[in-house]
Amino acid sequence: MNDATAAVLHGPKDVRIERRPIPEPAPGEVLVEIGAVGLCGSDLHYYAHGENGPNALRSPTALGHEAAGTVVAGDGTHPVGTRVAIEPAIPCGRCRACRGGRYNQCPDGRCFGSPPTDGALTGRLAVPSEFAHPLPADFPLAAGALIEPLAVALHAVRRGGVAAGDRVLITGAGPIGLLVLQAVRAVGAGETVVTDVNPGRLAHARRLGADDVRDTAHEPLPREQVFDVALDCSGVETALVGAVRALRPGGTAVAVGNPVRPVTALPLAWMQRQELTLVTAFRYAGDFPAAVALAAAGRVDLESLVTARFPLERAADALHTALTDDRQLKVVIEP
Amino acid sequence: MNDATAAVLHGPKDVRIERRPIPEPAPGEVLVEIGAVGLCGSDLHYYAHGENGPNALRSPTALGHEAAGTVVAGDGTHPVGTRVAIEPAIPCGRCRACRGGRYNQCPDGRCFGSPPTDGALTGRLAVPSEFAHPLPADFPLAAGALIEPLAVALHAVRRGGVAAGDRVLITGAGPIGLLVLQAVRAVGAGETVVTDVNPGRLAHARRLGADDVRDTAHEPLPREQVFDVALDCSGVETALVGAVRALRPGGTAVAVGNPVRPVTALPLAWMQRQELTLVTAFRYAGDFPAAVALAAAGRVDLESLVTARFPLERAADALHTALTDDRQLKVVIEP
Amino acid sequence: MNDATAAVLHGPKDVRIERRPIPEPAPGEVLVEIGAVGLCGSDLHYYAHGENGPNALRSPTALGHEAAGTVVAGDGTHPVGTRVAIEPAIPCGRCRACRGGRYNQCPDGRCFGSPPTDGALTGRLAVPSEFAHPLPADFPLAAGALIEPLAVALHAVRRGGVAAGDRVLITGAGPIGLLVLQAVRAVGAGETVVTDVNPGRLAHARRLGADDVRDTAHEPLPREQVFDVALDCSGVETALVGAVRALRPGGTAVAVGNPVRPVTALPLAWMQRQELTLVTAFRYAGDFPAAVALAAAGRVDLESLVTARFPLERAADALHTALTDDRQLKVVIEP
Amino acid sequence: MNDATAAVLHGPKDVRIERRPIPEPAPGEVLVEIGAVGLCGSDLHYYAHGENGPNALRSPTALGHEAAGTVVAGDGTHPVGTRVAIEPAIPCGRCRACRGGRYNQCPDGRCFGSPPTDGALTGRLAVPSEFAHPLPADFPLAAGALIEPLAVALHAVRRGGVAAGDRVLITGAGPIGLLVLQAVRAVGAGETVVTDVNPGRLAHARRLGADDVRDTAHEPLPREQVFDVALDCSGVETALVGAVRALRPGGTAVAVGNPVRPVTALPLAWMQRQELTLVTAFRYAGDFPAAVALAAAGRVDLESLVTARFPLERAADALHTALTDDRQLKVVIEP
Repeated sequence: MNDATAAVLHGPKDVRIERRPIPEPAPGEVLVEIGAVGLCGSDLHYYAHGENGPNALRSPTALGHEAAGTVVAGDGTHPVGTRVAIEPAIPCGRCRACRGGRYNQCPDGRCFGSPPTDGALTGRLAVPSEFAHPLPADFPLAAGALIEPLAVALHAVRRGGVAAGDRVLITGAGPIGLLVLQAVRAVGAGETVVTDVNPGRLAHARRLGADDVRDTAHEPLPREQVFDVALDCSGVETALVGAVRALRPGGTAVAVGNPVRPVTALPLAWMQRQELTLVTAFRYAGDFPAAVALAAAGRVDLESLVTARFPLERAADALHTALTDDRQLKVVIEP
Repeated sequence: MNDATAAVLHGPKDVRIERRPIPEPAPGEVLVEIGAVGLCGSDLHYYAHGENGPNALRSPTALGHEAAGTVVAGDGTHPVGTRVAIEPAIPCGRCRACRGGRYNQCPDGRCFGSPPTDGALTGRLAVPSEFAHPLPADFPLAAGALIEPLAVALHAVRRGGVAAGDRVLITGAGPIGLLVLQAVRAVGAGETVVTDVNPGRLAHARRLGADDVRDTAHEPLPREQVFDVALDCSGVETALVGAVRALRPGGTAVAVGNPVRPVTALPLAWMQRQELTLVTAFRYAGDFPAAVALAAAGRVDLESLVTARFPLERAADALHTALTDDRQLKVVIEP
Repeated sequence: MNDATAAVLHGPKDVRIERRPIPEPAPGEVLVEIGAVGLCGSDLHYYAHGENGPNALRSPTALGHEAAGTVVAGDGTHPVGTRVAIEPAIPCGRCRACRGGRYNQCPDGRCFGSPPTDGALTGRLAVPSEFAHPLPADFPLAAGALIEPLAVALHAVRRGGVAAGDRVLITGAGPIGLLVLQAVRAVGAGETVVTDVNPGRLAHARRLGADDVRDTAHEPLPREQVFDVALDCSGVETALVGAVRALRPGGTAVAVGNPVRPVTALPLAWMQRQELTLVTAFRYAGDFPAAVALAAAGRVDLESLVTARFPLERAADALHTALTDDRQLKVVIEP
Repeated sequence: MNDATAAVLHGPKDVRIERRPIPEPAPGEVLVEIGAVGLCGSDLHYYAHGENGPNALRSPTALGHEAAGTVVAGDGTHPVGTRVAIEPAIPCGRCRACRGGRYNQCPDGRCFGSPPTDGALTGRLAVPSEFAHPLPADFPLAAGALIEPLAVALHAVRRGGVAAGDRVLITGAGPIGLLVLQAVRAVGAGETVVTDVNPGRLAHARRLGADDVRDTAHEPLPREQVFDVALDCSGVETALVGAVRALRPGGTAVAVGNPVRPVTALPLAWMQRQELTLVTAFRYAGDFPAAVALAAAGRVDLESLVTARFPLERAADALHTALTDDRQLKVVIEP
């Protein structure tokens, strides 16, 4: 009765369906029954290689940090039955970064689904109530699982200082790129241009309102130096440097996608004469309420990004599909 | 051949149709044939009383500062035939405010339609080319005349620091209030509430997307202290103070509407315990391009605000109608 | 052995020397033996009237929120023997204001010395370790007690956006005004002008580096409209409005002193034409480390503000002196 | 009578003393008799190689953009006899960058001493009056010539967002590094650390108030990741990357020194996990008044940076000395 089915990663490509105990919510926490879990690039790194950047899987861990579900117990902050999107990175709340409002920079936090902390593929999470963000009663949980990447997108847009009327370039039209596109439009961007090498993704960008798209497998990046802000959502150096090169004087480039390698040819002298700024964006800090508000008002389309759904028991298939099928945007597991 | 029909204000309620010479564009200027002129509160003050705030009509002056038209001559920056919205307040370009990017605070500028500088009711204006903002080829000029008040709205929204997801209160649903409503929605505001004492205006606010409206002739202002930003577009002290009182701790109130009288009961000690901010907004500085971009993309509805149109010869009727008919939102004169 | 001498306020002008139990530090807390406590205006309001603004003394409470002392026990974050300045307002750490870095706006916090929470006149405080800010080993504790009002000053200066070279007007030369003066100089202000009606305080402002002072009992406020930022440290409406009137276009006024009454004549229409901003400042959020750094480096003089010292047993005399002797700047009680 | 001695660069290491006509001040301009000209890295690039970055000497040009002098004629804005520091980069005043207050990004400006625009080594410059910044009557002109690099430093500090109490790392202790050091101290920085490979320059940094210095020829850069802001004033990649690596999470690196080559090993993934920001700084925009204010108040020491003085006739010797003698900080030519 007090355990539940979980999909646990034991090593590269070794996902096992097991029973895990259901956590007890501590004071100030709510217990959330997970309804949907999105898979993202970091999940796929752990699945494929047993590591992601500097963090490695050292003991069996359930992945899953893009998650939404229903409150089933807790401190009463959110009534039982409330649908919530989960903000998975829980900071310490006391360090200088936390006290300064940039809690995504907290060095002492934990993150659901980031080894060794179990994530949403356990089916139940005990979450500090302020990190469980209420959704409207009828909000689809699969869309709710995408509140997390939408918060990533909004945070990046905020870091880039996108203002009303700005011309914006987005390099990379994966899920984050498509959410960044919608986020910049939601905050009043003017002309938007999206680049990728995948025609299907570019077509999706068009449907979501991009004013122009470029297939950079066949066309060059824009060279006009007209963009106020450029957000690289690909993590690929040529795209990032192309984004920088397309900025107007005084513009800002944002590194949103996880950079795969060190940058080896940043044109810093040229950037200096244009007085450009290069910012990075990591996770989110205070961005979930805006993500929920925009999604709940229908100003951002999350559901069209969900291209495949799997039950929890087929978590391995879901991860394999997300890793190998480049037609997928967002694969969602529904426990 | 080198003069044109103009509507000239000689004194309170004394508008005369006269011939005025067509200006010669100086180097760096374009000559714009005016197609539409919106009337605003300051025009009505000059018309009714011969003065507006600290400025008085001392010699016959053609009013009109909300204007759009077609380039008919000039320096080639904008090809002949280009439709443009006119930014009417021309700063000196050299003082500290100008060099600092806050040129709306320039003490040495002139403004078309602000006595003694003739405005758009002369039918032709010679405008520095960077203050003539190109519109799409088929953009209706009556809507083009509303780019100016939309820029006022966007500037106020920028001054208030409205961010994605913010709850926003707007007190006053006249043309500026309805444009502020649309502007905050265009930059991603969450819940919006609009108050007024005119049911027709509140119904219009609903149509433009307000989440809630309050008729403060019969209902109290919201008291929940939940708004991130409150913009007073009425100029009435009770509305402004009510707006301040409705803010969450750390919130910002913006005085957008021209305050009629000094504020006599600002609850400053209470504001200090909540650490509130009161900003004022005056005109615009760099806001026209964003206004054009949002209107051109159809994200702001300007045309529904135009409730009456008059030819130039009936300028006096237009002013009288705007002054006396409270069903009007924006009266437009089309030379 | 486990209780200590405390000065407890039982009602207006009723201070009693009693024994209070020494608190046990909880996990994450340090126990601080208090060495110096400064008295400020809010203490005097409680002492004289049994209330301060909306908060009233309902049960006997030890005052004292400007305090420094020595760590005598705790979690090891700060070694025993470390001198610390105490940040007395402890926020909840979880609400939106806290997560957003503006924890001074937390509605759920407690503040040492603010009834019903006992303060530093108990002689010992158990303080969350991140709110006990280490001082250099030989930093005088009487100066350490003034870190709190210096943080108030730095926070106000930050809220006002004082930048290098700014001309700054400070109305009111009490302890907060004199600390604001030093704070604006420490962050690079250009010309500084200080006003007050007390010649002794103005002389002190001169000694601390004010470029000019005005005795507004005999001279008018500056009228030149040249100041970038004006900080009212008096709480008096005529001073605040005079400060506003002295700003250049685009300038910012900061209400630092606790306003005694609602503002009854704010020239809002005039402010709007100048596009002025009125901000309020409440306590501090993240400002203690900077206050310690500037004081430790000798760039701010705290000790000259200490004009009288009393032992804890004479707390009533100290409060009476601070309340009645207008030659005093900062009265310090040394337990 | 209407020509004056000038030092004109005809090609690499080919400086000739010639007569050049004295310019007539246009309306809005003042004529300045130059009293002192500082030499900087870009002058030395032109002198040594006939080019600097993307700009090349194509016709004989008098160098000199760090200059101060005395008004000898003009429009009366500044009385004849006024000492002024010259802001040498004159923007168009009309483009989007100019109207937005970031006029250093104007693509259409000219800069005294940047080929083909003659500079201060002509002995007389006609300067728009708002770009001639008044100095106190007795301000030494050699120090006045250093107002320009001080403005560079203040601009970089502003771009980096240095706040009171911040820990600041400065890599490179040439004239710009030493001015940045003074600038961050003037705006309230806490601990400052300076690195270089030149012991004499590090000793100068100590004298100017650096809390610590590191000779990176023999010691590693700080690795503690504690700095809030790091400003690279060397233009050397290892220093820049070291500066980035020394930042705390959320910190900001500023590229101040002209980067010699593209950056080949920027650790972007690591930067992203720390959410770092890399800004560049180019010239100044609105920074001269603050530079004058701080220097006039004695809060910045300019004169100790002047290590050699030459008359105009020995301009070639001055350039040769600046190029070859690494004990020099700032070589000044006094026409």
